[in-house]
Amino acid sequence: MPSEELSFDDLRIGMAWSSRQVAVTAEAIVAFGAEYDPQPFHIDPAAAGAGPFGGLIASGWQVAALAMRQFVEARPFGAAAILGLGIDELRWLKPVRPGDLLQVRGEVVGLKPSKSRPGRGVVRSAVQVFNQTGELVMSFLSNTQLPARP
Amino acid sequence: MPSEELSFDDLRIGMAWSSRQVAVTAEAIVAFGAEYDPQPFHIDPAAAGAGPFGGLIASGWQVAALAMRQFVEARPFGAAAILGLGIDELRWLKPVRPGDLLQVRGEVVGLKPSKSRPGRGVVRSAVQVFNQTGELVMSFLSNTQLPARP
Repeated sequence: MPSEELSFDDLRIGMAWSSRQVAVTAEAIVAFGAEYDPQPFHIDPAAAGAGPFGGLIASGWQVAALAMRQFVEARPFGAAAILGLGIDELRWLKPVRPGDLLQVRGEVVGLKPSKSRPGRGVVRSAVQVFNQTGELVMSFLSNTQLPARP
Repeated sequence: MPSEELSFDDLRIGMAWSSRQVAVTAEAIVAFGAEYDPQPFHIDPAAAGAGPFGGLIASGWQVAALAMRQFVEARPFGAAAILGLGIDELRWLKPVRPGDLLQVRGEVVGLKPSKSRPGRGVVRSAVQVFNQTGELVMSFLSNTQLPARP
């Protein structure tokens, strides 16, 4: 999918995109955890090592936020402002650990005109996040609002 | 709901909890946006002022992450490790702006033994985030895994 200016009218069911791989660091895991999810397995390497995951893991909300960054950088829908409406069926399937490389794949699975905002459309995307061994670590469906062609 | 040590067996449908109010600052909005959601209305006050929201707004993922922090601090299920399995029907309903005060309310709406992990149970919670004027800004259903009584 090209990165040029796109509108809702340019999108088609089945259009897909991939992000680059992004490394997850222990520092970023601890920084996010300290601010937003201060449980021992996100912020304390020693306690995490003795805990249920045998080491630090990323907050699930950080994995979701990283997928957002990869989406913004990949610009699969062009440069227009993307308004997030909601998320369905978000599943955290595997732990994300320091050193993991995450790649996001998205696919357009639904398109409909906005009910509340004429001139805009709602894009439903199936989003999957994979690690460096190809394991699916997180998946969700997102609804985003995008401008239609003027 | 008390903050003592609880297990899955202590929870009942209808148990509810509230967090304290937490202030959202422009600095925190921009810091989160710069790292995880670098769109102009999250990171650039001038561009945001001229944009669709008339000013900076928080990334929806930051609002979700703030709700997580308030949940961790409120400890409605006690001190046990909370394993997030997934989220359903997450809806971003109103913009969150600098200076807003957010409060989270949760209610247990489902309880069932874990299929995959004997000795653990899955708690389904309805989570709502309100701003200082009582507007519902975000809601979702969460599934979390919790230890049962040994």
